Amino acid sequence: MMKKIGIINGPNLDRLGKREPEIYGSTTLDQLARQLQAEFDGKAALEFFQSNIEGEIVGKIAAFADAKFDGLVVNFGAYTHTSVALRDALLGAHLPAVEVHISNIYKREEFRHTSLTAPACAGMISGLGLEGYFAAVRFLLK
Amino acid sequence: MMKKIGIINGPNLDRLGKREPEIYGSTTLDQLARQLQAEFDGKAALEFFQSNIEGEIVGKIAAFADAKFDGLVVNFGAYTHTSVALRDALLGAHLPAVEVHISNIYKREEFRHTSLTAPACAGMISGLGLEGYFAAVRFLLK
Amino acid sequence: MMKKIGIINGPNLDRLGKREPEIYGSTTLDQLARQLQAEFDGKAALEFFQSNIEGEIVGKIAAFADAKFDGLVVNFGAYTHTSVALRDALLGAHLPAVEVHISNIYKREEFRHTSLTAPACAGMISGLGLEGYFAAVRFLLK
Amino acid sequence: MMKKIGIINGPNLDRLGKREPEIYGSTTLDQLARQLQAEFDGKAALEFFQSNIEGEIVGKIAAFADAKFDGLVVNFGAYTHTSVALRDALLGAHLPAVEVHISNIYKREEFRHTSLTAPACAGMISGLGLEGYFAAVRFLLK
Amino acid sequence: MMKKIGIINGPNLDRLGKREPEIYGSTTLDQLARQLQAEFDGKAALEFFQSNIEGEIVGKIAAFADAKFDGLVVNFGAYTHTSVALRDALLGAHLPAVEVHISNIYKREEFRHTSLTAPACAGMISGLGLEGYFAAVRFLLK
Amino acid sequence: MMKKIGIINGPNLDRLGKREPEIYGSTTLDQLARQLQAEFDGKAALEFFQSNIEGEIVGKIAAFADAKFDGLVVNFGAYTHTSVALRDALLGAHLPAVEVHISNIYKREEFRHTSLTAPACAGMISGLGLEGYFAAVRFLLK
Amino acid sequence: MMKKIGIINGPNLDRLGKREPEIYGSTTLDQLARQLQAEFDGKAALEFFQSNIEGEIVGKIAAFADAKFDGLVVNFGAYTHTSVALRDALLGAHLPAVEVHISNIYKREEFRHTSLTAPACAGMISGLGLEGYFAAVRFLLK
Amino acid sequence: MMKKIGIINGPNLDRLGKREPEIYGSTTLDQLARQLQAEFDGKAALEFFQSNIEGEIVGKIAAFADAKFDGLVVNFGAYTHTSVALRDALLGAHLPAVEVHISNIYKREEFRHTSLTAPACAGMISGLGLEGYFAAVRFLLK
Amino acid sequence: MMKKIGIINGPNLDRLGKREPEIYGSTTLDQLARQLQAEFDGKAALEFFQSNIEGEIVGKIAAFADAKFDGLVVNFGAYTHTSVALRDALLGAHLPAVEVHISNIYKREEFRHTSLTAPACAGMISGLGLEGYFAAVRFLLK
Amino acid sequence: MMKKIGIINGPNLDRLGKREPEIYGSTTLDQLARQLQAEFDGKAALEFFQSNIEGEIVGKIAAFADAKFDGLVVNFGAYTHTSVALRDALLGAHLPAVEVHISNIYKREEFRHTSLTAPACAGMISGLGLEGYFAAVRFLLK
Amino acid sequence: MMKKIGIINGPNLDRLGKREPEIYGSTTLDQLARQLQAEFDGKAALEFFQSNIEGEIVGKIAAFADAKFDGLVVNFGAYTHTSVALRDALLGAHLPAVEVHISNIYKREEFRHTSLTAPACAGMISGLGLEGYFAAVRFLLK
Amino acid sequence: MMKKIGIINGPNLDRLGKREPEIYGSTTLDQLARQLQAEFDGKAALEFFQSNIEGEIVGKIAAFADAKFDGLVVNFGAYTHTSVALRDALLGAHLPAVEVHISNIYKREEFRHTSLTAPACAGMISGLGLEGYFAAVRFLLK
Repeated sequence: MMKKIGIINGPNLDRLGKREPEIYGSTTLDQLARQLQAEFDGKAALEFFQSNIEGEIVGKIAAFADAKFDGLVVNFGAYTHTSVALRDALLGAHLPAVEVHISNIYKREEFRHTSLTAPACAGMISGLGLEGYFAAVRFLLK
Repeated sequence: MMKKIGIINGPNLDRLGKREPEIYGSTTLDQLARQLQAEFDGKAALEFFQSNIEGEIVGKIAAFADAKFDGLVVNFGAYTHTSVALRDALLGAHLPAVEVHISNIYKREEFRHTSLTAPACAGMISGLGLEGYFAAVRFLLK
Repeated sequence: MMKKIGIINGPNLDRLGKREPEIYGSTTLDQLARQLQAEFDGKAALEFFQSNIEGEIVGKIAAFADAKFDGLVVNFGAYTHTSVALRDALLGAHLPAVEVHISNIYKREEFRHTSLTAPACAGMISGLGLEGYFAAVRFLLK
Repeated sequence: MMKKIGIINGPNLDRLGKREPEIYGSTTLDQLARQLQAEFDGKAALEFFQSNIEGEIVGKIAAFADAKFDGLVVNFGAYTHTSVALRDALLGAHLPAVEVHISNIYKREEFRHTSLTAPACAGMISGLGLEGYFAAVRFLLK
Repeated sequence: MMKKIGIINGPNLDRLGKREPEIYGSTTLDQLARQLQAEFDGKAALEFFQSNIEGEIVGKIAAFADAKFDGLVVNFGAYTHTSVALRDALLGAHLPAVEVHISNIYKREEFRHTSLTAPACAGMISGLGLEGYFAAVRFLLK
Repeated sequence: MMKKIGIINGPNLDRLGKREPEIYGSTTLDQLARQLQAEFDGKAALEFFQSNIEGEIVGKIAAFADAKFDGLVVNFGAYTHTSVALRDALLGAHLPAVEVHISNIYKREEFRHTSLTAPACAGMISGLGLEGYFAAVRFLLK
Repeated sequence: MMKKIGIINGPNLDRLGKREPEIYGSTTLDQLARQLQAEFDGKAALEFFQSNIEGEIVGKIAAFADAKFDGLVVNFGAYTHTSVALRDALLGAHLPAVEVHISNIYKREEFRHTSLTAPACAGMISGLGLEGYFAAVRFLLK
Repeated sequence: MMKKIGIINGPNLDRLGKREPEIYGSTTLDQLARQLQAEFDGKAALEFFQSNIEGEIVGKIAAFADAKFDGLVVNFGAYTHTSVALRDALLGAHLPAVEVHISNIYKREEFRHTSLTAPACAGMISGLGLEGYFAAVRFLLK
Repeated sequence: MMKKIGIINGPNLDRLGKREPEIYGSTTLDQLARQLQAEFDGKAALEFFQSNIEGEIVGKIAAFADAKFDGLVVNFGAYTHTSVALRDALLGAHLPAVEVHISNIYKREEFRHTSLTAPACAGMISGLGLEGYFAAVRFLLK
Repeated sequence: MMKKIGIINGPNLDRLGKREPEIYGSTTLDQLARQLQAEFDGKAALEFFQSNIEGEIVGKIAAFADAKFDGLVVNFGAYTHTSVALRDALLGAHLPAVEVHISNIYKREEFRHTSLTAPACAGMISGLGLEGYFAAVRFLLK
Repeated sequence: MMKKIGIINGPNLDRLGKREPEIYGSTTLDQLARQLQAEFDGKAALEFFQSNIEGEIVGKIAAFADAKFDGLVVNFGAYTHTSVALRDALLGAHLPAVEVHISNIYKREEFRHTSLTAPACAGMISGLGLEGYFAAVRFLLK
Repeated sequence: MMKKIGIINGPNLDRLGKREPEIYGSTTLDQLARQLQAEFDGKAALEFFQSNIEGEIVGKIAAFADAKFDGLVVNFGAYTHTSVALRDALLGAHLPAVEVHISNIYKREEFRHTSLTAPACAGMISGLGLEGYFAAVRFLLK
């Protein structure tokens, strides 16, 4: 039976591929979802969720846990650095999670070097671009 | 005439009693509500509100104030440590409030020792488990 | 052709004029909107937005950018000091923005002296009361 | 058989009710003791202790532990923020303790927001006035 | 009768318009003065003062106060971030003042994000270019 | 009628004049008391108190307040930098107090540059040697 | 033509698989090398290097750059958090590098949350176990 | 032969007695000078200097040293907390100096609790009002 | 003639061997004293002192100095990290002292890594259990 | 044609050679000027400036820039560590500058280890005594 | 069978006894080794190692562990305060270790008060001179 | 007789002139050595040493001291900011040393503004390019 993986994207990530394509490339979040589904077709059941609202993501994490998902890939965007609520949600979900950042957070402002949510994850991938999502799913399938 | 008390619970507290019962016990938020109503039956009109969304709680505090409530019991969960907006909402509401934490925040991570919202409350109770809610209502009724 | 200016107000600002009129005056957010429209009638097309929810404001900033607005006036209230997500939203929108604070944030608590969002704006006005909104629009029209 | 509860008050609390009655009320420490005994008559055996001397309180905590008390209510006053010795005494005593502060320590100077002793307690109550003592005993009897 | 407004510029601002015109534009301090006088002709009596010397500005603030001025517009340049003496001078003058910065201080080095003098002002305007001076005078005339 | 002044010396000050006379001089605490009494003979009733025990000094401050003293001269020695309890005792006593340090605390270790008790005093004298006690009494008599 | 990838392991990593197998598994560094070579056989030419000596690794990075390698996978172990020299070596090498940590550095001591070398890398992978090395090579081959 | 004492007052102290007499009293700096001269008539030759300009005070300290003065009483006002130059000037002058503050700097803003110049003085008097000047001269004459 | 060594134990150490024997062993302070006397019989005259009261220890250190002791072994327990008074007492005593901690203070909470009293000692021994006392005496006898 | 070099000395440096000759030598600022002119005779046109007043130095830097000087040697003394205004003046002058300190600032108080002005210079020389001025001019001539 | 103890000395300790004999005495590292062997002859098999190179010490610790040593005495010199790699090496070695410092690190610069390696040791001895090595071996033999 | 000067270069400086010639120029370390020898031919005996390994440099400093060198020029590169061991080596060597940095460390990352080794040197030169080495030798020859 296929593993169920939830893939959560946070604030401003709905704009992916639409703005600053010279930096982030021209792949949209929808296209990324389709690429991931193609890659893991038959190996994993992926469910995608995006929200700008911290509290909605808190709720979705709990819902994934209730639905007995096998793992989470999370890119909380800006909330990575400020949200204790998402950390608590992950801790309460008891699911293996991998935190993904498209850009290398260590090359950006000082306040982005800290992650409040990473200690609640199995691991973190930063700076590998969209490839980070693929590596995260691959890890969760092992 | 009975005092009207609003009881606000923040992010992840909708999961109370459902997860980690060995730590938090098996009482759900609904059951807690019923126990509180039973305890203060005829003494206080209690209204319950839970949301994972910071901004919805901000709005509810204002609504309680508009509805001339007599006091608030607030457990903002993770937002306790990060939300200036809730602090401002309490300051603007001009209602006596008691902040409740089920566990002892001083035994947890360093960043949970600080409360941004407690200075906007009359007092704070931490670590008394669900008993904290009862003590808070009792205080507001005096 | 008139410039389109979005005017965004954050948490607790829906209470303007309703509470503590001795401090903030008795002008409501609606009345402020009407005064601004009267002042800039024929010079600017103003669109107003208020929300207590951080993530909704993130989404609205992107929407204003998609709709080719010419500038933003933003008063993020408490989120000014805590929201990386709003900073990112502004940076992604590539719109000139002016941050407005009705009171002088430098006369208040230490944590209000810092603005996470101001570095993503063209400028900031603090302490000029409602006049700050007028000055901000005037600047964006130049 | 009744539970034995030790109630410890620290420096300057012998002045309670004698000075600044407009702030702290006119109840003295003796009167508080009598009120507590009246409230818990037949339910708990309360023993009271007050000292301005940190080391005497250290000794008394050990004595309560030796005498097999069932719990402690402690208001260490100013020593709350500076005493590692009292923290160690509590940790060594292996008794459930509740820390009480009459005023809300979060509304006072920054250095009073920290408690060195609270991590050695089951919980903490701050800002509920003398009611805090009653709530603390009630909790220990459960 | 017209209001008297003092307009104070601090260190290096005598160079305005002479250096780095690509950044600060080519308007000199003299030209700015003339533009302000033209704009507020008949509405305000403006007096201009520039000095590189902290102590001379301290003295001038006192002189403006003695001469019963109605308000001050101050751009203390680098002294904004280091001068307690100017803060004291403003506090002693009991005049409404607006602090102006031509560039957005929040986009510059960390040490420029702090203002020692802003807490002694009614408000602050940063990043609106020379328009900041006009907005400041306009505010003081209300 | 003569003013009553309490003169309190803290830990290690009982050794004055006995150790390190090349630094502190050879005047003992007793001799200092006699010199002060001689100097203010007929002008002030001086009462002296020395203790190495923080809590005893807390108690003595309260006792001086109960006895309606007119002022205090306090040299808390090492407790100056660590004692919240003495600060609270002074605040509760509502007596004008002058803090005296024989040596200049600003020339010593960093941690001696801070005084927790000075904010609860009218003033502080540091580095004037034993002359500091005389100046303090003189001030309290005015 | 195959890409040349250098794989550098720092202090204590020569002990991999030999100690604490219950934590790190029983795969040795040699076995890992063979698994990587098997996985990328025909796709990449991998060269392995391990040293406990910071300065030797500095030299090897330069040697890889001189030998026109196409990328580096680096696990600097403890030097991640203390070595400016390795950061400089990477910056001088102008090679894309991926930093790998077997365990999640965010779950460990505070001083391990910081990486001095990550800002000189394209990205970082933490907590994915040995899988991190595979993901890093895969990324460099794209 | 009489000792020569220089009495230096820094920024804003020329306003003494003219502003906020309810706080600082109505004694002007001139009147203070005359009172001091009367008090020490025949005992000390006093020379007074006031300037708002840090660098002028630096120069005056050197001039007093060149003129073989026997001691200095210094109230540097705001420069106390920011001026390394005055500290250096005092250190270079090799004259015994007493720092005076009219108000108690420990009751004011945090940044006023630090003195950069006190370590270069024999002692410091804070909060004794104008009496501080008298005590300082008295000390220097001993 | 035998050297006289004072052995001082601070707060909570009177409980040694009575509580948590699984951690600290079952040797009491009395037994330790007897073992030390047996070990150094004929080599050193040992005098023991224990108090929970900081100020009493301050006094005892001075008394040992007056009695011309040759050295001190001190375990100030929790006061190690907070007491400037004990530091001053040691500095004033001019006796060689060795600070002993039974457990390794570097394995405990952050605030126990600092010692205010160690700079006033010849050396410090931490984590060697009761053996630390023996090593300390041995050192003082050399 | 000879390069024009401005040599600026800040507060207290007019005392060079007059005080503490055992530390700084007996060379006065005038003598240093003459030695420099002798050394660079025919190679550079040197102009000297000394002031204790920060704002005068700000003005002089601008004047040197207006006069098309080729470089500056600056020893701002104490202002090195406190003056943002001098930093701004240098940045606005667009002249290569070398900062000189006669003594090694790293051997002095902590606050002297930081230079606010060095980032606006090409380089810095510290601790080479008067030789630092010669090395600085030599560098500017290359 | 005798216990095997490894004795590791770090950077600059090869100079022991050769430089500054007035401070460190004239015993060289070789002589110390011989004294230790004499003292523990027949009781322990001691093996000595000194290196200035951090990574070599890392390797030696692992080698001692592989060779089934019973304990380590380590004096890492300057690396004590900067080396995470040595800490990790000790943690991986699972050997009881005692950290020795010849001088009292608490009497030296602030940055020497911290030990990164002590938390990985059983205990630490500081300031007992060469006697510290003897006490450490003695402890390990118990 | 000629003075003997040791010239030490640290990590990554072996790459000088080979990489990033647009920044650092195309002079290699060997060429620099030859230029220095040419410049000081007959005036100084220069010996050059470069290593990437901290501990080797520690050893070389001691060797230079043993060989009775007259001074050192040191560019420790990245180790400047992290190495206590090199600081200790210099302190133990009792040789006059000048620290050289090719670029201006004050224009780079914050952590490069601090030098752990400069306090152990006579002086420091930063930002003068290779000219810094020449100035350093020149100073040591005086």
